[in-house]
Order: sequence, then structure tokens, then C-alpha cells
Amino acid sequence: MLRIAICQDSFSRTDVAYNAKKIKDFCANTTADLFLFPALAMCGHLPSAVITQGTFEAAVRTAIGEIKTDGVVLFGYPYRDYQGLFNSISIIGNGARGFYHQQNAQVPFTGGRNNVIFKYKDINVGLLFDNELDQARALKDSGAELLLVFNTTPFCVDIQKTRQEALSALGLPCVFVNAVGAYDEYLFDGGSMVINADGQIAHEAPRFMKHTIIANFDDGKFDEHEKAPLNLSPESQMYQALVVGLRDYVMRARAGGVIVGLSGGIDSALTLCIAVDALGADKVYAVMMPYIHTSQMSLEDAQAQATRLGVSYTVCAINEAMEGFKRALDPMLESAKSVVKENLQARCRGVILMALSNEFGYLVLNTGNKSESAVGYCTLYGDMVGAFGVLQDVYKTDVYRLADYRNRLASEPVIPARVITRAPSAELSDGQTDQDTLPDYDTLDGILRLYVDKNMEKSAIIAKGFDEKTVEKVLDLVDKSEHKRRQAAVGVQITPMPFFKRIMPIINEFRE
Amino acid sequence: MLRIAICQDSFSRTDVAYNAKKIKDFCANTTADLFLFPALAMCGHLPSAVITQGTFEAAVRTAIGEIKTDGVVLFGYPYRDYQGLFNSISIIGNGARGFYHQQNAQVPFTGGRNNVIFKYKDINVGLLFDNELDQARALKDSGAELLLVFNTTPFCVDIQKTRQEALSALGLPCVFVNAVGAYDEYLFDGGSMVINADGQIAHEAPRFMKHTIIANFDDGKFDEHEKAPLNLSPESQMYQALVVGLRDYVMRARAGGVIVGLSGGIDSALTLCIAVDALGADKVYAVMMPYIHTSQMSLEDAQAQATRLGVSYTVCAINEAMEGFKRALDPMLESAKSVVKENLQARCRGVILMALSNEFGYLVLNTGNKSESAVGYCTLYGDMVGAFGVLQDVYKTDVYRLADYRNRLASEPVIPARVITRAPSAELSDGQTDQDTLPDYDTLDGILRLYVDKNMEKSAIIAKGFDEKTVEKVLDLVDKSEHKRRQAAVGVQITPMPFFKRIMPIINEFRE
Repeated sequence: MLRIAICQDSFSRTDVAYNAKKIKDFCANTTADLFLFPALAMCGHLPSAVITQGTFEAAVRTAIGEIKTDGVVLFGYPYRDYQGLFNSISIIGNGARGFYHQQNAQVPFTGGRNNVIFKYKDINVGLLFDNELDQARALKDSGAELLLVFNTTPFCVDIQKTRQEALSALGLPCVFVNAVGAYDEYLFDGGSMVINADGQIAHEAPRFMKHTIIANFDDGKFDEHEKAPLNLSPESQMYQALVVGLRDYVMRARAGGVIVGLSGGIDSALTLCIAVDALGADKVYAVMMPYIHTSQMSLEDAQAQATRLGVSYTVCAINEAMEGFKRALDPMLESAKSVVKENLQARCRGVILMALSNEFGYLVLNTGNKSESAVGYCTLYGDMVGAFGVLQDVYKTDVYRLADYRNRLASEPVIPARVITRAPSAELSDGQTDQDTLPDYDTLDGILRLYVDKNMEKSAIIAKGFDEKTVEKVLDLVDKSEHKRRQAAVGVQITPMPFFKRIMPIINEFRE
Repeated sequence: MLRIAICQDSFSRTDVAYNAKKIKDFCANTTADLFLFPALAMCGHLPSAVITQGTFEAAVRTAIGEIKTDGVVLFGYPYRDYQGLFNSISIIGNGARGFYHQQNAQVPFTGGRNNVIFKYKDINVGLLFDNELDQARALKDSGAELLLVFNTTPFCVDIQKTRQEALSALGLPCVFVNAVGAYDEYLFDGGSMVINADGQIAHEAPRFMKHTIIANFDDGKFDEHEKAPLNLSPESQMYQALVVGLRDYVMRARAGGVIVGLSGGIDSALTLCIAVDALGADKVYAVMMPYIHTSQMSLEDAQAQATRLGVSYTVCAINEAMEGFKRALDPMLESAKSVVKENLQARCRGVILMALSNEFGYLVLNTGNKSESAVGYCTLYGDMVGAFGVLQDVYKTDVYRLADYRNRLASEPVIPARVITRAPSAELSDGQTDQDTLPDYDTLDGILRLYVDKNMEKSAIIAKGFDEKTVEKVLDLVDKSEHKRRQAAVGVQITPMPFFKRIMPIINEFRE
């Protein structure tokens, strides 16, 4: 029998000593034959520029040398030898040290060349990363009786279902190991699993939280005794991902708290909820910055949100700053275009948020959503300010779903119903609504999900039933707004194709 | 004899029809056996997300089908078949169509698997990209008598020397084909060359401009008749690169002009020169935004720069905007930290620049340099605003060199001497200079070039003779400022490691 312990935990990005201690402590306090830790547990999920720093490698090597245990310890780390830099899993047994190098590797890693099977207590154990499951058959043919699969793919909605389907079809008992926690834009969502050869899940760790699975592998199969609630709704997955993403960012930045600019609208209302759920009300500071176009309804709703969630709340009008700019700019502005005035309001608010950030040492949360970001319906250095874009990868229609979801979690709704039902408006001029210049959000998001997330062509999108002129307009807006997205705040990935992964030319002259 | 025509030109990023026409016109108007165009000439140097768009590929395929000529046409394009997406060179002869796929390819391209030699007029011609010259020997052994090398590496200072050394050592006659022109951050700098087997350069096209080389290859060697001035100074290379980079960005964006915020300091003075040299004085609008800390000297020098260069010049004080913000913020600001007041000034200036940009439809040029960006000596949404960061990849010590270089180009210096000799200051408080908080720029840049450009470790940098405490402080500032750089304006690459290529964790807990 093999007793397998899976450590689904959060590891520091870059703090090797901390991670090494976590690995050693887990081994010391757990009784098992195999001790499994996530891919790159020793250093966290890192951009290439850090991994290739020489001293960083040295720290990893030192830390590894100190790990000793009775069973076999398997954890991810970057390994360099004369053949290259590999994304590797250590196999540290009693006196013996081996490794498996990821074969289907991405820059900056070199691809390994060999499948690896090790034998422990007479059981042949094979290793793979989650993006090379096509090698499972070869491992089985070579005698593997049990497969350990290490996840390297960050969260997006419904990814767990995809994983379960792929792992259940392998025809071998397998253990899937994932980390939990966020690194800037990337989130690892837990949900580590133990699956029998028949595809049945024997153990499944909860998502979005730390957890230890202990599983016994005997006579070719796992005991069944622990399962997580399956099939989280998309809203639940998204909401938890946003909470963990924000919490980890603020924690790692060691910031004292966050500042949210409220507008009375749904984006800032949802951002405020997520901030309170992630950090606690005492670490959240809300500020409403009204101007002459701000409705009484917005003022009331912003105040109501802050009160219901128990956060500090201030009102700081931008009238005087606007007057100052108008006097300064008056001799130079002749046309008085509406865009000048509208952007000026957004930017005055940005300046106030940043002044408060500098004063308190708090991070400003950006409240923009993916739909706005896609079509450039946002002001650079205005509503685009912020250290972290909580909703940066959330479509506007999902913002509505999440607001509704969050309201249903509490006995009393925390977001006033009117915030959800009123017509969305930036309130930068009187009577303005988003739909004056954009298609309705159902249509807009429908087109964006095909164009951005699925990289689909214009003709194919129109063939899905969308109006040709609308599709053309939306695609044109997306292509023209790349310069804004290049200066946008980072936010955690939720969709299959967040904008931080979709780098396009800033000046794009191609039109289908 | 082979008559070879090399088209060193600028191609549109994404406008396939335009590029195809350029290729066809060149072939129609030139008499040659081989017509050589740069790598990816058919689509420009593109991020992966565009190249993989299906319709884009279709446009490329259509365009290629229409190219016909008497000789052989060789141009770069993305090619997809069932084996993958390749970075390819077409070999289109009379009735025959072949291709060479880059073997040492990078994401999103698949690596090709074969060397390719084609025979024309009894001469065996081999093809390579510039990053796979290690295959030259194999091609020679397979009978290649002439090598065509297609450049894929964007400009950085002194790259041409490196290329010449590598190509001269191949032991085969070769033709090196480069494009000229910038795509957002990347610049191709021309300097196409024809080199004999003995390493002697027979032809060299000028740098940073369009040019056609016609070379005759007869009896195993090239005729010699045309050479460009060799060994441009680093200042000359940098200055020309910055001019071409800015000109192409503004041209491709189809903007009417640019706005430069002058401070009286050297960064904005140099940016103004580059803008005028790139676009002409009539497309440049300069604005000085003084406040109570602005010296009379700065006001005079800013005015003098604008006058000498003949650009429109306005003074727009920020006093009233500052007063407006102070009144609005007063109830919330208790500590009145200096950082709050200093950043407020920078951000008021940012708002004014953006208001003018919205009014005139001009692009704001960012004037920040690489040294500031490295250590975070800049204000987000303040002096960091701008569509394009002209000096984004230029160290401060190089800013001085370039100012001096530009002054020596004209009979009367365009940058007042005092701007170059005065102690650098952000003038955000009275009597402030940069060196109050930073090491002198020679030391700072010395450390940064090792840490950023060469990815060197702390201990190795100290071993070069820098003070340990200073090195620690600088490295710490660099690691802590990643969040600012993620929201910085793009600018053209000059150094070996621009920040847009050096993506680091925003929260980095590792310290050597």
C-alpha cells in the first residue's frame, strides 16, 4: 500500500526559504509514503526573468539540499544543468535523488527528453505535467501503475471540469496536484484530485483554499472517502477567484488596505464587495467623488453600499478641481469638445484617488471591467488608475451576474437593487447612458467572447447571427483601443483570453 | 552571373495588400535574378495574436498567389499547414514555388526541420535566418555556394558590428537582408549587407533609411562598388533610432502631431528635438506648466528651446488646479506628506497634457528616461502619461550624450547650454535635485546596465567596484518599481534589455 499526502497550498513567489520551510514542515508533520507538492512549489509561478537569475537558482539548490524524509518527496522547481533550464519535479527518496523534466515546456524552459517512472514499495509511479497527458499511454505501456500529474495551468472559469474529463479518460489511477493562490495576474485554484483507473474521483480537494488530501493506494486502486462539492457555478468560481486574487495581491504587496472610488454604479459596487470579502471592512476605504452630472440616486446608492458593508466612506467633490483646470485650460481650448470635459472629470477623480493612496499608503483598486477595456470605453489616467484591476477580466454581463450572486449570499442584499436595475451610465454628462454609444451589453459581450476569447474571425462572428454593422463597429473599437490596455492595471485571469495575454499591435492597420 | 536586388524598405504592420503591392512594384521596376525582401515583409513584424488570426492568413495567401516575376522572389511571410505555423521565406520562381521555414523559431512559430538549398542559373543558394547561422557549415557541406540571411532581430546599439563579425566568419559569400522602420517598440535599422567569402563587405546599405542594393555575384564573388559610412557612433545610432521610432509610430497612428510638456530640464528638451527632427516643427506643440517651485531659469530655458526649434509654445500654470485639489482634499489629508504634494503637481500636469491631447487630437509624448523608470523616480499618471515614451529605453547618462550630440549637429546649439550643465531636478519642491535621493547618474546607470541589461547578480555587480550599500539600494528600488513600469508608455528599443521585454513579478519577495 502507498499512503499519499497532497499538499494543496500557497507558495511564495520568489521567497525560496519560506517555500522550503513549508515543504519541510509538511513532511515532518505528515505520515505518508509519497509527499506531493505543486509544480514550481519551491519558487512560485514566475516570469522567466527571475527564474534565470543566477542567485535565484543558487537559493533553490541550497534549499533542496536540506530536504530529507523517510518517504519520497516530490515538488516542482527550476533545475539547470549543462543541457538547459528545466521545469522539474524532484524525486527525493531515502538517499536517492532524481527528477522529472517537463517535456512539453515553454519559454524559458528547455523541454526534457524522457518519460520517468520510479518504483517505490513495488509500485511503478509515472510523472507528467498537465499539458503532456498524451504521454500517459506510453507510461502505461512502460509499466506505470500510478500517475502523478502536476498542474501548470492557471485558473479560468470551468477549467476543473475540463481537467476531470481529461484525467478520467487516462485509464490509469492518477493524482492531480494543484497549488492555490494568486501571483499578480495568475491564479491557481486548488481542486487537487485522486482518480481511479475507471475514471471515478476518489478524493477532490476544495477549490480556492488550502487543503491536504491523504489517499491510500492499495491493490491498484484508491480508497474513497472524501469529496468536495462538485460543479461550482460559474458565478461562484469567478467570485472566489476574484476574492483570492485580490487578497493575495494585497497581502504580497504588504499594503495596509485599499481605496475604492464609488460612483453609485455596479462596477464599483461589486469591487467594494469583493474588497470587503477579501480583506475585511476595516481595510477598505471608499470615496465618492461627485460632480454636477452625478445624480442624487448615485449619491444615495454609494452611501448605502458603504453603510451596508461597514466601510469608511468619504465624499470628495471634484467641482473645485474642475474649476481650477477650466480656468487654466480656458485660453487653449476653443472647441470645448465633449470628450475633453468628460475625460477631465474622470482624471480629476483619478488624481484624488492617487492622492489618498499616497497619503494612507493604500492601494487604489481599479473598477473597470473587460467589456469597457475591450472597446476603450474608459479614460487613461482617469477611471483607469489603480494598482490592481479587480474586474479587469470580467465581462459586464458577468458583473451583473456576480452582483446578483453576491446579493443572494447574504440575508440582506449588500448592493442596492437599484444599482443593478438602473441603466448603466458613466455620468460624465447629463442623461448619458453607456448604450448611447455602445451596443447593449448582451450583444457586446456576445461579440467580444467570440472575437477576444475565441480569436474568431469577423465573418464567423456574423454567421453566429450578430448584425454585421455592429460586429464591424465592435471589432474596430477593440483594435483601436490596444494603447489603453497596454497601460491598464493588472487583474486576475477569469476568461480563457485575458488582455494581458493578448498582446496586439498598438497600431493595427489590418481590417478583414 | 546572378544579379541580386535587395529591397531594404519599411513594410506595414498588418496591411497585407500594401505590402504585396510594394513587393510587386519593386519586382516590376527592377532588373534582377533574385529579388530579396526582409523576413515577414508580407505582414510586418507582428505579435503572435495577429499572425494566428485566420483571416489574416487568408489575406497573406491571396497576396502571395498574385506575385509573378521572371527571376526568383524571396520574401518573409507566416505560412501555415497541417504541421504548424512557420516563419517562412517564399522561393517563388518561374512556375515553381518553394519555401524555407525558420528552424530556430520562437512562439507562436513552429520550428522547421530542414535546411533548404535551391539552384538558380547553376548556383546553389542556401537560406537562413539570422539566429541560425550555426547551420551555415552544414549548408556549405551540402553544396551551398551563396547564403541568403534574413534578419529577425530588432535594433539595439552596436548590433551592426555584431552582425558583421558573425557574417564575415561564415566562410561563404552571403547576403544579409534587413527591413527599416519601427513597429511600436521594435525597430529594424537597415544596414543590409553583401559580404564575400573572405569576410570583406562588398556592399552595405545605409542605416535607418530605405535603400536598394544591386549586387552582381559572379565566379563565386561579389563586385565591390558601394559602401555605407561604417561605424556610426553610439550617439548617432541612438538618435537616428529614436527619430525613426517616433516618426513611424506617429505616422502609423495617423496622428496630426504631438504634444511635449517642457520642464526646462534635459529630458523634455531632448524629446522636443527628436520630435522636431522626426515630424517637423509644425507638428509639435510644446507646453510649459509652471508652479511655485519652478525656477525662472526653467521658464527661460523652456521658452528658449521652443523658440530655437520654432515650435508652438504655450505656458499653462498649474496653480489654480493645485488650489482646487488642495481645497477638495484638505479635510482628508492630515499628514501632508511631501510625496502627496509632489505627485499632485506631476498629476495636474498630466491632466493638462491629456486635455490638450483630447482637444487637438495630438499624441502626448512621454519624456521619462530608463534610469528614472528603473528606480521608480517618476509619478504614475503624472510625468508618466503619454502615448509614446520617446526616451523610455535611454539611460540618463545617454540623454546627456544625445543632447550634446544634437547640439553639435547644428551651427547654433538648439538646447541651451545651461539645460545640460545644471543639476537635474524634478522641481517638485524648492531646491530639490535628483541626487538628494538617488546616487549620481554615472553610478546609477553603471549599476543598472549590469543589473537590467546584463541580468547580473548583486555580488557580481559589487565585485565590479560599486559600493555595496548603493548597489543594494538601487536593486531594491528596481524590484519595487515593477508596478509602475507595467503601466508605462511604450518606446522604441535601444538597449539590449528594454523593460517591455523584462517582465518581472510586480510583487517580488526575493532578495539576494
